[in-house]
Amino acid sequence: MIAVLSRTAPLAQKAAVVRIAEDAGLEVHVSETPTHCLIGLLGEGASTLVPRVEALDGVIEVDRKAPPYMIVSRTHHAHRTEVRVGQARFGGDAVHVIAGPCSVESREQVLAAGDAVKMAGASALRGGAFKPRTSPYAFQGLGRQGLELLAEARARTGLPIVTEVLDVRDIDAVAEVADVLQVGARNMQHVPLLRELGRLNKPVLLKRGLCATLDELLCAAEYIVSAGNGQVILCERGVRTHVDHARATLDLAAIAVLKERTHLPVIVDPSHAAGTRALVAPLARAALAAGADGLIIESHPAPEVARSDKAQQLRPDQLTSLMDELRGIASVLGRPLGVDAQEAAA
Amino acid sequence: MIAVLSRTAPLAQKAAVVRIAEDAGLEVHVSETPTHCLIGLLGEGASTLVPRVEALDGVIEVDRKAPPYMIVSRTHHAHRTEVRVGQARFGGDAVHVIAGPCSVESREQVLAAGDAVKMAGASALRGGAFKPRTSPYAFQGLGRQGLELLAEARARTGLPIVTEVLDVRDIDAVAEVADVLQVGARNMQHVPLLRELGRLNKPVLLKRGLCATLDELLCAAEYIVSAGNGQVILCERGVRTHVDHARATLDLAAIAVLKERTHLPVIVDPSHAAGTRALVAPLARAALAAGADGLIIESHPAPEVARSDKAQQLRPDQLTSLMDELRGIASVLGRPLGVDAQEAAA
Amino acid sequence: MIAVLSRTAPLAQKAAVVRIAEDAGLEVHVSETPTHCLIGLLGEGASTLVPRVEALDGVIEVDRKAPPYMIVSRTHHAHRTEVRVGQARFGGDAVHVIAGPCSVESREQVLAAGDAVKMAGASALRGGAFKPRTSPYAFQGLGRQGLELLAEARARTGLPIVTEVLDVRDIDAVAEVADVLQVGARNMQHVPLLRELGRLNKPVLLKRGLCATLDELLCAAEYIVSAGNGQVILCERGVRTHVDHARATLDLAAIAVLKERTHLPVIVDPSHAAGTRALVAPLARAALAAGADGLIIESHPAPEVARSDKAQQLRPDQLTSLMDELRGIASVLGRPLGVDAQEAAA
Amino acid sequence: MIAVLSRTAPLAQKAAVVRIAEDAGLEVHVSETPTHCLIGLLGEGASTLVPRVEALDGVIEVDRKAPPYMIVSRTHHAHRTEVRVGQARFGGDAVHVIAGPCSVESREQVLAAGDAVKMAGASALRGGAFKPRTSPYAFQGLGRQGLELLAEARARTGLPIVTEVLDVRDIDAVAEVADVLQVGARNMQHVPLLRELGRLNKPVLLKRGLCATLDELLCAAEYIVSAGNGQVILCERGVRTHVDHARATLDLAAIAVLKERTHLPVIVDPSHAAGTRALVAPLARAALAAGADGLIIESHPAPEVARSDKAQQLRPDQLTSLMDELRGIASVLGRPLGVDAQEAAA
Repeated sequence: MIAVLSRTAPLAQKAAVVRIAEDAGLEVHVSETPTHCLIGLLGEGASTLVPRVEALDGVIEVDRKAPPYMIVSRTHHAHRTEVRVGQARFGGDAVHVIAGPCSVESREQVLAAGDAVKMAGASALRGGAFKPRTSPYAFQGLGRQGLELLAEARARTGLPIVTEVLDVRDIDAVAEVADVLQVGARNMQHVPLLRELGRLNKPVLLKRGLCATLDELLCAAEYIVSAGNGQVILCERGVRTHVDHARATLDLAAIAVLKERTHLPVIVDPSHAAGTRALVAPLARAALAAGADGLIIESHPAPEVARSDKAQQLRPDQLTSLMDELRGIASVLGRPLGVDAQEAAA
Repeated sequence: MIAVLSRTAPLAQKAAVVRIAEDAGLEVHVSETPTHCLIGLLGEGASTLVPRVEALDGVIEVDRKAPPYMIVSRTHHAHRTEVRVGQARFGGDAVHVIAGPCSVESREQVLAAGDAVKMAGASALRGGAFKPRTSPYAFQGLGRQGLELLAEARARTGLPIVTEVLDVRDIDAVAEVADVLQVGARNMQHVPLLRELGRLNKPVLLKRGLCATLDELLCAAEYIVSAGNGQVILCERGVRTHVDHARATLDLAAIAVLKERTHLPVIVDPSHAAGTRALVAPLARAALAAGADGLIIESHPAPEVARSDKAQQLRPDQLTSLMDELRGIASVLGRPLGVDAQEAAA
Repeated sequence: MIAVLSRTAPLAQKAAVVRIAEDAGLEVHVSETPTHCLIGLLGEGASTLVPRVEALDGVIEVDRKAPPYMIVSRTHHAHRTEVRVGQARFGGDAVHVIAGPCSVESREQVLAAGDAVKMAGASALRGGAFKPRTSPYAFQGLGRQGLELLAEARARTGLPIVTEVLDVRDIDAVAEVADVLQVGARNMQHVPLLRELGRLNKPVLLKRGLCATLDELLCAAEYIVSAGNGQVILCERGVRTHVDHARATLDLAAIAVLKERTHLPVIVDPSHAAGTRALVAPLARAALAAGADGLIIESHPAPEVARSDKAQQLRPDQLTSLMDELRGIASVLGRPLGVDAQEAAA
Repeated sequence: MIAVLSRTAPLAQKAAVVRIAEDAGLEVHVSETPTHCLIGLLGEGASTLVPRVEALDGVIEVDRKAPPYMIVSRTHHAHRTEVRVGQARFGGDAVHVIAGPCSVESREQVLAAGDAVKMAGASALRGGAFKPRTSPYAFQGLGRQGLELLAEARARTGLPIVTEVLDVRDIDAVAEVADVLQVGARNMQHVPLLRELGRLNKPVLLKRGLCATLDELLCAAEYIVSAGNGQVILCERGVRTHVDHARATLDLAAIAVLKERTHLPVIVDPSHAAGTRALVAPLARAALAAGADGLIIESHPAPEVARSDKAQQLRPDQLTSLMDELRGIASVLGRPLGVDAQEAAA
């Protein structure tokens, strides 16, 4: 249950709500949107307080049917959140592409990838230093050395870096280099990780689990946001179904449904859904046409020698021509692609 | 196993292959593509004939790994099939939209729908006279009276008619009115129906079953084509998964994969995948961006009083503005939308 | 909406309900359970009649929330339906096994299968004369000749025959031989077939579609029952999921849920869910332990030469030892296995 | 690729294999089964070493097609692993039930639960102190205080304790109390957790993820086992599918398939698959009948006031009567239920 006050209500009014809740043994979560102050009253017995809370000065409404992801919900937060990544704003008018290799493999590889990705017009560089792998014997990433190479690529290209974190004990090291910390599909419900990321002041890219519902994804985002970090970008990357001609089934209806339920930006990863190079471009175009705020695409200077996801990474020339198509589709929807002067100046 | 000969090989050479197969007790299927003559040799023991068949005059190749849908496969039939519907050619350069109400409900309704759909630029009018319904107590369509109303709408608008057939005993009546006979998802493996449709000389729109694999869809098409009717349009309409925020999960990777495996045209039905009006436009745009040859969209003059699929049919103005977006996306891919002068003249 | 009267209410009282409904333009369906007379009032505007119908003499209750499968529902029909097949009663205390080959292949094969199945203690013999096959080039069954062989096996063993029907035009021929007409998973929503089977006075074995919900299965049964034939046995045979280590995922929770929602008997087909011989016995045991009223199991005198489902048919000795385990499990649940003296005498 | 030597081969022979692999820059994993020494050679270029390794003294075989879970695979380890938990041996002849509440809620509750579970004949007590919850606002367990209460229940009942661990930083605290550390479905691919558990000398109960394949589950087990801890019990708990009448679809074919692929014991959690009390007993019976080595069942002294999983926990009397049925089914399969004199003495 949520008590809704104006953001500008006097502190005393907000405190009165908190006091009543705490006296009743409830847990209290306060969050402030651009326009409102939302006070979540959580626990058994909350509903018995409704009349008393409704009667308090400054309380506009008591919402008894708030979803379990009350802060990321649009119900009392119609204003869309824009997450700043370098000069890009995810969730704004423009759509943005994050591109780069699955794994950081060597200095040469990551610098070449960074150059190619920048040339193609991407807004950020992705690359995995810590890799979550199904088998313990598969390449697990270069780890901290990989982070250093990413830092070098950033210095050279000026592109912000998106990279994954798997272990709560690595968060500080990753946060030192990353502009966006990625939580992979396998870790969508890795709660200690979500909570610790909630203590950072850096954007988090949260991927949907392979069979997660949208409400589970939004609750995972709520773990981060309720811990204090509102800069979350959601990412659809395909769900596991009986379909066996692609690595996962991209759920493009999720974009519109998420944008109805939450004010957070929503991007799509066509590469992991595709699993093969030939499907990446059609799915990338489709995702943008369906209304995604951006894409994250795997691209490697020489995919045939990649140490992971060999079959699905685009060659630089493929990325470049895909970007042209994406620009066209974005423009049909009235959206620029990539960082433009106006955004850079903002 | 398939023996591949040139289409222009002398009949005696083709007959020699058939004779050897029949003598060995095999079933034989002959089909001719624009360039080749494919002779399927089916049954146990076919493989023992390989050396003898390979040695025959005119036999270019014996393909032992042919898929079970040998005629609709692209393996020996690289040329794409174009299916003529009115002035439109599905599978050609242009993309086409079929639109109209879920069910034919009344004369007034279907004529209004026809006018609106024509005005919006659709290439054909859909409308169900025989409706497959989950419950025996739901509206099952106007039946033969509905067919007459569709005939009237065609006369008035000039648009070709797409309508579903459920029962082998109705095929003649439906074929008298329909320009395209639709096989619904529930009937994708209704074999007697497929076989009878294979005896017509009219296009068939074959929808993918709710949990069919692409090979099962192609085998269903093969039932029609192997019975003599090559005019089949495939239609992706969503698969059933754990996802519960849309009526079905649209599998857009299927488009590119189907176009790799078969020479038949592939269209998409975003309406039944969506289940709610708000999702139709994003999914329609996505399907076109992913490479579909066309779309089939439910549109009703007054969806709020529709007798079926109330929640997902577009109003005429919604259809019109969607068509504008679709035209833009098609153009990014270098494809015109709808029947153009060149196509009409062809 | 359903008006519930006592079965023994005077005809005049029942007729009064029907008259009001028909005057209001509603469709009316009457069905009688052992204890009640249920009058379904179907169509828009039904709810406005509630007060008038409730006020009629003999009307016990007006149920506005009846499910769309009102006759097969247990809501007003707590008494379980028992379907008589030969001497067996499906849905009674005993559990029954139907066994036999996937396809009828030859006189020798089907007679050997019948003997083995009888020896093992099965209550009925299955065998396909008309086979629904994914590929048009696969063995489609011996057709009417297969039916004759089944008739011969019945004469020899005394076992009732279960066999599939695919085409409305074959129903009479199949019904002449079959004691139970089977509707396969692909045809669960083949409405013309369901309706015609509803006009027979013979049991129908209705298999759940590969991705059907239980309510869809019950609605399919309602098509048969509302057309006049109450002898329907439901069959769970696995649903299609991302799981790839079995041909389908057997949904054993469905048994208890179905038995809560409907009074019809529920059996399980472990063979098609398994897809390989080694999984048949564990799944058969599990199905019985979960509360199934019976099983339908594929068994072939020599599976290695079978013309279909080679990998999953049990050898006669495997069937026999499985029957022993099944007898033990049934006994833990207090149920006899197979036709006993009491049932035969009933 | 795996080089297989006898377990009793001289150390010098084993070392020679390791040396060649290391010289070629490969990663090497050595594991010893009761009968063999398996040396995994991992990395690109391994295959070029085959002739040299095959020629070494003591090398029985070089297996190039070993699965990515080489240690938990049965290929070179036919002997079944038995995992000792208190007096029980999971994976031995007997089947065992672990029972207890979803969450530890209070001293009174957990002691009452422990007494009831012991009385019913369970072999171990489960109870969650750290709870993985979808929503950040749901009850997250009593944490370390919960562990203390579990320790008290163990002291009182003598039953070994099974409890979940979510965070690598809690492992030591949990391991101090737990006899078995549970990894929940959400954490099946939480690699840092798996690796740390691999350093313990305590059994780990590893639950299958909601949409994990069996090979993914086995790879997750391999992370633990390859880090040094061979005491892993696998647990099937249902997969997420389109089926909506149960919380998950229990995949009982998985039991037999897992027991074919791995030597580790396999148990089943019917409670989380069921989601409602009425489905727990049928699914529990089915799982045992399908060949499970044990079950983990939620049971609460007063489910109606439980703080989590209220709908699916069994009352003590329900657990007791289920245990009777389970004993009967186990006996049909020739297996005792629970710790018997022979096992206790072993």
